[in-house]
Amino acid sequence: MTDRRVLHGIGVSAGTASGPVAVVTQAVGIDEHEAASVDPAADGERVREVLEGVAASLRERAERANSESSKAVLEATAVLATDKGLIRGIDKELKKGAGVTKAIHDAVEVYAGKLRKLGGYMAERVTDLYDIRDRATARVRGLPEPGVPALSQPSILVAEDLAPAETATLDPEQVLGIITEAGGATSHTAILAAQLGIPAAVQVKGIAEAIIDGPVVALDGGVGEVIVAPTDSDATELAERSRRRAAALAGSSGEGATRDGSRVKLLANIGTAEDAEKAAKYDLEGSGLFRSEFLFLDRDSAPSLEEQTETYTAVLRAFGERRVVVRTLDAGADKPLSFADLGEEENPALGRRGLRLSQAREDLLDTQLEALAQAHRAVPESELWVMAPMVATVEEARWFAARARATGLPKVGVMVETPAAAIRSAHVLEEVDFASIGTNDLSQYTMAADRMQGELAELLSPWQPALLAMIRETCRGGEATGKPIGVCGEAGGDPLMALVLVGLGVKSLSMAPGKVRAVRAALRMHDFDTCRQMANYAVDARTARDAREAVLAIADPVLRDLL
Amino acid sequence: MTDRRVLHGIGVSAGTASGPVAVVTQAVGIDEHEAASVDPAADGERVREVLEGVAASLRERAERANSESSKAVLEATAVLATDKGLIRGIDKELKKGAGVTKAIHDAVEVYAGKLRKLGGYMAERVTDLYDIRDRATARVRGLPEPGVPALSQPSILVAEDLAPAETATLDPEQVLGIITEAGGATSHTAILAAQLGIPAAVQVKGIAEAIIDGPVVALDGGVGEVIVAPTDSDATELAERSRRRAAALAGSSGEGATRDGSRVKLLANIGTAEDAEKAAKYDLEGSGLFRSEFLFLDRDSAPSLEEQTETYTAVLRAFGERRVVVRTLDAGADKPLSFADLGEEENPALGRRGLRLSQAREDLLDTQLEALAQAHRAVPESELWVMAPMVATVEEARWFAARARATGLPKVGVMVETPAAAIRSAHVLEEVDFASIGTNDLSQYTMAADRMQGELAELLSPWQPALLAMIRETCRGGEATGKPIGVCGEAGGDPLMALVLVGLGVKSLSMAPGKVRAVRAALRMHDFDTCRQMANYAVDARTARDAREAVLAIADPVLRDLL
Repeated sequence: MTDRRVLHGIGVSAGTASGPVAVVTQAVGIDEHEAASVDPAADGERVREVLEGVAASLRERAERANSESSKAVLEATAVLATDKGLIRGIDKELKKGAGVTKAIHDAVEVYAGKLRKLGGYMAERVTDLYDIRDRATARVRGLPEPGVPALSQPSILVAEDLAPAETATLDPEQVLGIITEAGGATSHTAILAAQLGIPAAVQVKGIAEAIIDGPVVALDGGVGEVIVAPTDSDATELAERSRRRAAALAGSSGEGATRDGSRVKLLANIGTAEDAEKAAKYDLEGSGLFRSEFLFLDRDSAPSLEEQTETYTAVLRAFGERRVVVRTLDAGADKPLSFADLGEEENPALGRRGLRLSQAREDLLDTQLEALAQAHRAVPESELWVMAPMVATVEEARWFAARARATGLPKVGVMVETPAAAIRSAHVLEEVDFASIGTNDLSQYTMAADRMQGELAELLSPWQPALLAMIRETCRGGEATGKPIGVCGEAGGDPLMALVLVGLGVKSLSMAPGKVRAVRAALRMHDFDTCRQMANYAVDARTARDAREAVLAIADPVLRDLL
Repeated sequence: MTDRRVLHGIGVSAGTASGPVAVVTQAVGIDEHEAASVDPAADGERVREVLEGVAASLRERAERANSESSKAVLEATAVLATDKGLIRGIDKELKKGAGVTKAIHDAVEVYAGKLRKLGGYMAERVTDLYDIRDRATARVRGLPEPGVPALSQPSILVAEDLAPAETATLDPEQVLGIITEAGGATSHTAILAAQLGIPAAVQVKGIAEAIIDGPVVALDGGVGEVIVAPTDSDATELAERSRRRAAALAGSSGEGATRDGSRVKLLANIGTAEDAEKAAKYDLEGSGLFRSEFLFLDRDSAPSLEEQTETYTAVLRAFGERRVVVRTLDAGADKPLSFADLGEEENPALGRRGLRLSQAREDLLDTQLEALAQAHRAVPESELWVMAPMVATVEEARWFAARARATGLPKVGVMVETPAAAIRSAHVLEEVDFASIGTNDLSQYTMAADRMQGELAELLSPWQPALLAMIRETCRGGEATGKPIGVCGEAGGDPLMALVLVGLGVKSLSMAPGKVRAVRAALRMHDFDTCRQMANYAVDARTARDAREAVLAIADPVLRDLL
């Protein structure tokens, strides 16, 4: 019997869950103590068996997969696992005297090189090849296969960290919650979990050790609390919290506004036409961020004008007369394009990404703007706004606005992600019609801390007064020029933070669709003056923790149930 | 006869030069069209000859080297070039059928791996090994050897870009000037050129092509102008510019102050005890930045308490009663430490560098602070200030201040390099005694643009109004708390920018010692009110170019000769 233990991390996707644990294992790599192959034929036989096993388990997963695309990927990977060229390559390495796991690694590397040279679809298979390598290596070493295990019952996943690809393929029916030991609050994994509506907490130190003998945990993804081996009263308390939360949300519908009627548009962050259709079914006022880059990633050439027009038209149709804010191509950095590669960069996040890539490849931007303009003509009732990512100067804003307006687009804006754009917002806004703050990147640059790096998570809290001060500067520019400022980073989906943002002067909040209800409920509980007071307290606080506490202290007590 | 042509880049080290061009060649890599080796013995013979040639040319350079340390490095590299293990390795690759340049590359890679495993001194030899590889490859391919050529007469170096190591070993007697096609204004190469007092311009587009037939160029490293095939009247004009510059500087001596007597401390940026001794001979008021990391780089273990105490004592002794501001260890990012490696980072500039590394390795910081305290006791007349790099929050400032004060250090401060520290300067300054702005990093994070990336040079101009707005925020915090703010980034060494910084409220400027005279002369020409007006014009300008022009328009006309 395990002792009950309470661990604390950072809540990144609200909701509670309780259930058995499934551990996501890390890849193990070459066995550094293995002996050289003395009987290559026997070792080759062993490798064949292992690869057959890998293929069989992949086929089994494919059968149970609940989406056609995951099924197809898993089946193709199973076929690749028993590819003759791969096995011959391993035989060759074994004959050279490599140990079994080294032979697998070296042969896979050679094969991967060949696939990469072929380019296109074949090059993309390299990821699958590495997956096979890691599964086979684990089997040879008698260790569990890496990655998300096949779930026999709904479970809470526990991982050191999750790759975005792993998160994207999770089945929300089977995954009750996600707990990671590392990971950051603004990592893509955290964002995807929130979009899938799976409760999640990151930076839960000690979780791996704590669950060795405690296969059941309870999770509150709002406050980031994890209870290992929860008692009955924990279960009751968690259920009670869920009930109160449901009650607080019950009355939430319609337009966003503070209690005294200050309007705040509540919008959805989306990435695909499919997202748009799903989000449009929610009770919300449109999309505040359509991440158009998903159209451009993982392919050999840019999408054509026709293909883009079709997608944008579908997105606008989904929302009818509601607002849709499209962000033009934000590639580079962690989202490289094979057909627009500007070369290796030492610090990709500080490199030629976002609008800087568009300036180097004007053709890409012009086609996209033209497609957006055509989509708008096809759905004339739509309220289309278009904005550029990673703007840092007045010249860049002007350059983008001129190009966008030349195609007849009615509303042109910029993202405020760089501290430069924040502190110069009045000057930048003179060139455009609106701005939208990307809190994740703005936080990354303001704090000079990589949002992908878990150790720096505390610096990246949206409660850091420095980030809030940058947002205040941005809103002052909005007030000076009479142009609206929105927020489309993750911070806007936190009900408590939403109050602060509104108090700072933000006019719209865009978030994962599932978060809109709680944010709307929070706004309805508070007057604008209270929001403004909260904003002042938060900006003037000494630390992120002080800021949050000061705000929570003057919030309606019912709000706690929404966090 | 070449036609006269004028090219424009960014001036990064003031002064003029005129003379013959020496082209710095890039390494060429494996010949992708070379045939496989059919006669390994003959090819092996050829490689031996080539390596003998490389060794001979290195020995020749060693003889002419004017410093003992370069001489030793070159001689050791010459010995390595004819190392038997290396040659045997190449023979082996040739027998496997590799072409000559591929055999050299592969064998060197194997050898480099072995050296790396040995660690320490041997691991450091890998750089020399690659140098041999590149020289040998160039000889095999009948191309000029890469790197700075041996100079038979004082010349102007022209390069695509220069590695910091190449710049560091330049002989200022032989190198009249440096012109690079790429490179950034705040790259380490630009900084080192200014420290060596060599006129330099970066981002001079088209220079490589322009000098193919024009072996003489004239360079103005102040304004970034390059004249290919200059005429007699160009030479006269350049000489005249030099003469006027000398006249403007003639009266410059003593303490820094505006014409109406507002005091501005003029200080030197230094990196070693040797630098300290050199800088102390200049007419300046101390050091505003001692980059202590040079003590820690390129070694296997941290310097001992004794070694550090000795170095810091020497630095303090050199300056007597003058101020010395020591920055504690600023490693990580582009300055990794073998004995304090926190792992690979996707974006090292946004990673665990500066104070963040000290928080992970408190032992390193505590030893350093203790050594500084002991040095201060050994030179009690010295005015020692100590500051932490890469501070972003109030907690970090407080953490550092407590540790530093516990050792008895009298003046404790922080670097303002993150936008977070700039916009929160009043809060941060409550914890410490002073702050110093690192304009290069502050610019990098404010603009979200890597300072090492030449293509982004325009964004990184110190004239970007966004950077100046950040500096103004920092100075407002200084005024609110009554604590002094200095600048120790490169911007402080530009006479025109110095006026703006003083107008923004900066109380001290630290720069390459050779720049102090021009900055002091510029200050003496202007009243504080003019500086303040310049600051307002610059911050309110729409673009970096507008900012500089607006300031220059109200500057004393004589100042132009100092730029």
